[in-house]
Amino acid sequence: MAGNSFGDVFRITTFGESHGEAIGVIIDGCPPNITIDEAFIQSELDKRRPGQSKITTQRKESDTAKILSGVFEGKSTGTPLAMVIPNEDQRSKDYSHIADKYRPSHADYTYQMKYGIRDYRGGGRSSARETAARVAAGAIAKSFLAQFGIHVFAHVSGVGKIEAPNLATHDIDELTALRESNIVRCADPATAHEMIAFIDAIRKAGDTVGGRISATIQQVPVGLGEPVFDKLHADLAKAMMSINAVHGFEYGSGFAGSQMQGSEHNDVFVNPDGDANNLKTLTNFSGGIQGGISNGMDITFRVAFKPVATLMRAQQTINEAGESTEITGKGRHDPCVVPRAVVIVEAMAALVIADHLLKNQLYDPTR
Amino acid sequence: MAGNSFGDVFRITTFGESHGEAIGVIIDGCPPNITIDEAFIQSELDKRRPGQSKITTQRKESDTAKILSGVFEGKSTGTPLAMVIPNEDQRSKDYSHIADKYRPSHADYTYQMKYGIRDYRGGGRSSARETAARVAAGAIAKSFLAQFGIHVFAHVSGVGKIEAPNLATHDIDELTALRESNIVRCADPATAHEMIAFIDAIRKAGDTVGGRISATIQQVPVGLGEPVFDKLHADLAKAMMSINAVHGFEYGSGFAGSQMQGSEHNDVFVNPDGDANNLKTLTNFSGGIQGGISNGMDITFRVAFKPVATLMRAQQTINEAGESTEITGKGRHDPCVVPRAVVIVEAMAALVIADHLLKNQLYDPTR
Amino acid sequence: MAGNSFGDVFRITTFGESHGEAIGVIIDGCPPNITIDEAFIQSELDKRRPGQSKITTQRKESDTAKILSGVFEGKSTGTPLAMVIPNEDQRSKDYSHIADKYRPSHADYTYQMKYGIRDYRGGGRSSARETAARVAAGAIAKSFLAQFGIHVFAHVSGVGKIEAPNLATHDIDELTALRESNIVRCADPATAHEMIAFIDAIRKAGDTVGGRISATIQQVPVGLGEPVFDKLHADLAKAMMSINAVHGFEYGSGFAGSQMQGSEHNDVFVNPDGDANNLKTLTNFSGGIQGGISNGMDITFRVAFKPVATLMRAQQTINEAGESTEITGKGRHDPCVVPRAVVIVEAMAALVIADHLLKNQLYDPTR
Amino acid sequence: MAGNSFGDVFRITTFGESHGEAIGVIIDGCPPNITIDEAFIQSELDKRRPGQSKITTQRKESDTAKILSGVFEGKSTGTPLAMVIPNEDQRSKDYSHIADKYRPSHADYTYQMKYGIRDYRGGGRSSARETAARVAAGAIAKSFLAQFGIHVFAHVSGVGKIEAPNLATHDIDELTALRESNIVRCADPATAHEMIAFIDAIRKAGDTVGGRISATIQQVPVGLGEPVFDKLHADLAKAMMSINAVHGFEYGSGFAGSQMQGSEHNDVFVNPDGDANNLKTLTNFSGGIQGGISNGMDITFRVAFKPVATLMRAQQTINEAGESTEITGKGRHDPCVVPRAVVIVEAMAALVIADHLLKNQLYDPTR
Repeated sequence: MAGNSFGDVFRITTFGESHGEAIGVIIDGCPPNITIDEAFIQSELDKRRPGQSKITTQRKESDTAKILSGVFEGKSTGTPLAMVIPNEDQRSKDYSHIADKYRPSHADYTYQMKYGIRDYRGGGRSSARETAARVAAGAIAKSFLAQFGIHVFAHVSGVGKIEAPNLATHDIDELTALRESNIVRCADPATAHEMIAFIDAIRKAGDTVGGRISATIQQVPVGLGEPVFDKLHADLAKAMMSINAVHGFEYGSGFAGSQMQGSEHNDVFVNPDGDANNLKTLTNFSGGIQGGISNGMDITFRVAFKPVATLMRAQQTINEAGESTEITGKGRHDPCVVPRAVVIVEAMAALVIADHLLKNQLYDPTR
Repeated sequence: MAGNSFGDVFRITTFGESHGEAIGVIIDGCPPNITIDEAFIQSELDKRRPGQSKITTQRKESDTAKILSGVFEGKSTGTPLAMVIPNEDQRSKDYSHIADKYRPSHADYTYQMKYGIRDYRGGGRSSARETAARVAAGAIAKSFLAQFGIHVFAHVSGVGKIEAPNLATHDIDELTALRESNIVRCADPATAHEMIAFIDAIRKAGDTVGGRISATIQQVPVGLGEPVFDKLHADLAKAMMSINAVHGFEYGSGFAGSQMQGSEHNDVFVNPDGDANNLKTLTNFSGGIQGGISNGMDITFRVAFKPVATLMRAQQTINEAGESTEITGKGRHDPCVVPRAVVIVEAMAALVIADHLLKNQLYDPTR
Repeated sequence: MAGNSFGDVFRITTFGESHGEAIGVIIDGCPPNITIDEAFIQSELDKRRPGQSKITTQRKESDTAKILSGVFEGKSTGTPLAMVIPNEDQRSKDYSHIADKYRPSHADYTYQMKYGIRDYRGGGRSSARETAARVAAGAIAKSFLAQFGIHVFAHVSGVGKIEAPNLATHDIDELTALRESNIVRCADPATAHEMIAFIDAIRKAGDTVGGRISATIQQVPVGLGEPVFDKLHADLAKAMMSINAVHGFEYGSGFAGSQMQGSEHNDVFVNPDGDANNLKTLTNFSGGIQGGISNGMDITFRVAFKPVATLMRAQQTINEAGESTEITGKGRHDPCVVPRAVVIVEAMAALVIADHLLKNQLYDPTR
Repeated sequence: MAGNSFGDVFRITTFGESHGEAIGVIIDGCPPNITIDEAFIQSELDKRRPGQSKITTQRKESDTAKILSGVFEGKSTGTPLAMVIPNEDQRSKDYSHIADKYRPSHADYTYQMKYGIRDYRGGGRSSARETAARVAAGAIAKSFLAQFGIHVFAHVSGVGKIEAPNLATHDIDELTALRESNIVRCADPATAHEMIAFIDAIRKAGDTVGGRISATIQQVPVGLGEPVFDKLHADLAKAMMSINAVHGFEYGSGFAGSQMQGSEHNDVFVNPDGDANNLKTLTNFSGGIQGGISNGMDITFRVAFKPVATLMRAQQTINEAGESTEITGKGRHDPCVVPRAVVIVEAMAALVIADHLLKNQLYDPTR
């Protein structure tokens, strides 16, 4: 009912506020005997961590995940796997100035109206800090998927009006190297250079900007997805839309596909391997999903992020008493969230695929 | 686990194949003492029914819903409300030619691979016919919401490359009259005229085209939505993406918003009524949802539909034996789904809002 | 939320009132390619049907289940399997005399208070007639389990103060033959004779009596059950307690075991087959379940049913206006429910085992 | 799917192994603005803590719960409330001798078979230590229920063959004082004296013994329970059966009621206050629940616990290699669990009532 769990079989429940004791996550339904690599979990958290570069918030937090249960001698046991990430650099005083003010385009007003109480420090539960717990869980989902050769890759494909060209390669390692070669995490270095300059200018102006992240999931077996409501792309959509600041989702041909005609949009089946159980399609406007079920082609989708709402300049707003007031962002904030959100998109995608991979075992006719 | 239920409190479970005995739905969690108006349910089904106009399939089905339980003396009793819609004009022979062929961009291949068996007649469970059950359930959700003055309105805002201008009015009755004044269900008559001519030309060419539906939900109280995963827009996204042929969803500023800067995108709070518990915003780039919770402004979103995959022309494909073959659409199909999908979008939106309205009772601090 | 669904993977949702159009059930999550035997479904319904013998209600209903979806060419397709059982011999007039009276130890008062409305005819949704839908679903669960050699057997082990001795055999076929040799469905013919005479005398006195049903589930593989809350016996308990008139559940040594000492109660492990993965225990006080997980021994449990509340004699009660009044059972009622409840107990047990068998595929280390 | 969550609206998810870093719980769905009393949480944990008296294990653990989230300035915020209880006195070496042996009537064998791996230290996840997390969550449920005047009371009503007489009073405070006046937690001091002497003798003999706990829940409003599967007593049964060592559950007249006749068992309605919406019954064989819904009378139930499986004497068993071996309990164990289980029974009952109290808001016709 309360919405802090995601997934059915590989199920996560997150907790924690931005400036409380800690945030964390329980994974219930993680299969047993999976090797748990704490160094990998940390490397994932580092991609989301604040203070990475000049175009992210300068706030400093090490974001170290501690495993409390569900692991024995380095392997998952099939029991709940709990991880906690303590909150360090809290600086609650930074937020005293917003204790009774509703920040524009933030969740202050809606949380106050819904719950009648809120932890105003740093946005409390509505803070994007919660996504660190998702990244930690996503790292374990990725380790599980890697056993099946399944890999998720996301990168920044758009910032403001700047658009990256289509990916030059499908090789995950090459793509990752290209993406990690720059601080904005765009796999096209030339576009990355442009994006970084733009974000830096925006930051200096005390403003913020939105962006887009594109993702591909490779080597997903045929059969993942549970029609008619839990279609694979419907669960991917919900997962992405649940990430802070996301305003749009499309898969395969997406919105552009809605302008096309069937004769150009249909993906023609071919049988390159002479295996009737392993067909491919010449094009992939379907984005690897047909009828809500993966068809063995690469799964592709794109996510739109609105600009960060906290500005380093004065804004008009209303306080809890209903009076007009002015507010100016303090603390340390991101001018653009997409560079740090890439690993969040990957984590949520990995969680969806892990959940559906397990679900599909229940129907696999070959078992 | 299996994905044929939607919603938590106001929960529907649908069943039925295109050419089986019947399709239907159980609503579990429908509040008691709601007046059940069978004429209204029928009028909603009529909006989705085939054979409405020259730009929809000519297949004839009356699509009459029969209530089997959960209603006593015209009112809901709080027990499961079951409705069945018998399948009439089945013409199974129309489908014998595709019994062993995988139609391009359909679910034939993925269903066969996932389940090892499929009812190939008319797409079986993957047929959009299943959405009639959603419309019947949505009609009851709408009746429930009407008690709170909440109304959902959707219309066709795009067909192919044709785009409708922004709505000229916010009055639901006016909008509905404008929309129902034309067979494509666009609330802008001039654009409607253009769309109809285009779809008719596409139909004559044996081709199909995609389109877009825009929706607004008015008078939604503040507080609906369950962060951090069951955010109101995340559940709307999943609901829309679960509709056949949908490839994209955006709310509020959507993808366009991801090109904007915070200083232009933020919605400034105002207090027009001098009521601290009833604030408004000057703009509504947030689409009526902040932090995943409704803020009292109109909820706005847009849905992208791919072109119909069944073409009245020959296409190359593969059969179950893995051999190359050719297929040509028989039977009677839609050149464009959006005119009939408007009421499906409304139904799914009403189901999401009804579900969250009930959930929110559990947290409402004013109770 | 509303409680008309049971199970997670093999999930049923039932609907229908005693005197409405029909009752029925949707099974969502039934694996594909299971042979659906309508004759077997009917034979199961016949065991629950009214009018079987002099010691059951004389009400006549054929209770025929019609399959509406989820089956193609005799096999399950993995899509929702819906079944409807029309209500025939309704005689609503029989119930006009209780329209505004609260029958003692029935659900009239609680339903009226909870929902503010109720279908008073024959108890409406609270009628045990709903269990016919469970039996139909249970028949399909039994067919699924039979593929794995798993069999559920229940019989009447107690009526009033009459207790049957322990079962003389473990052979399912012999036990079934013994049980079906008498109308009270007790596998001990001598005790059955005594029970029948007692129930008949109770019936003639216009009174009713309670009883007990004992069950065993054979050939359940090791590993079924999901600690710490969804332990196999916890789900069996909920399943049994959800059956009308049930007041108690125990498994293995049960209440008697709570009087024992560890040294006599512990089940000693042995390895008769020299297979470390297929151990047995010398005794089975654990009832085939240890730590909430099946251990490969027979699962054993017992269920207590209260006496039927409807008496063929005058009783004092209160009406909806709060006034004292008198009520006398009309219509045709059972003097004792256990003979017809045996197949209901089996059905619910089969549904629990089918659900857990599927769940356990997700953790099976041998996969 | 994995079974570590309980409840739908007031939902808990527990984690942790006996000898891992910590155990803990997340409550998702705890209503906002509830005063969180850490001293009360601790006082509840103290009732379950080891080392309380000569008839409990001498193991020493402070069992201190630390709140990590969901509480702001002493009140719940409606966001997930996470609590962690660190594991202290672990003495893992105590368990080296059972690393490869299956203890009789424990979960070692079933966990190993199900998951293919297990944390053998102290039973790992199957240890009753997990119930400390339930008690901490139950304390918060009790605080919530106290706002409505609802109170849960349980006590030890039986040890081995010793049975306590019916309660002499219904006053919660008196009952609590009587129960806490002795170390076995029986509200009848004379019987308590007898029980203590018996348990002490059993302990000296290196043996263990089972027992029974009886509970009453007072001031539960009419209307709690969600037929037909989530009946209030069905959820109470599942909650109790999920507690370690429980083998039986009955409510109201229970097993004894199954020996009675309807004419003696029916609860006659009366209207003492002249309020048609607040009826009572002369007797309470229904245990405060009719048709699965609370009727306003005291809810009564009884729970049976098997004897502790760990004995301080040599027992024959089998090891992971399938070989015969001998095992003798080391470490510090309870001769009888019921004195420490009283607060666990209360906690689970409070969780069930809190969950259903919230659910019932969704249907309350008076709203």
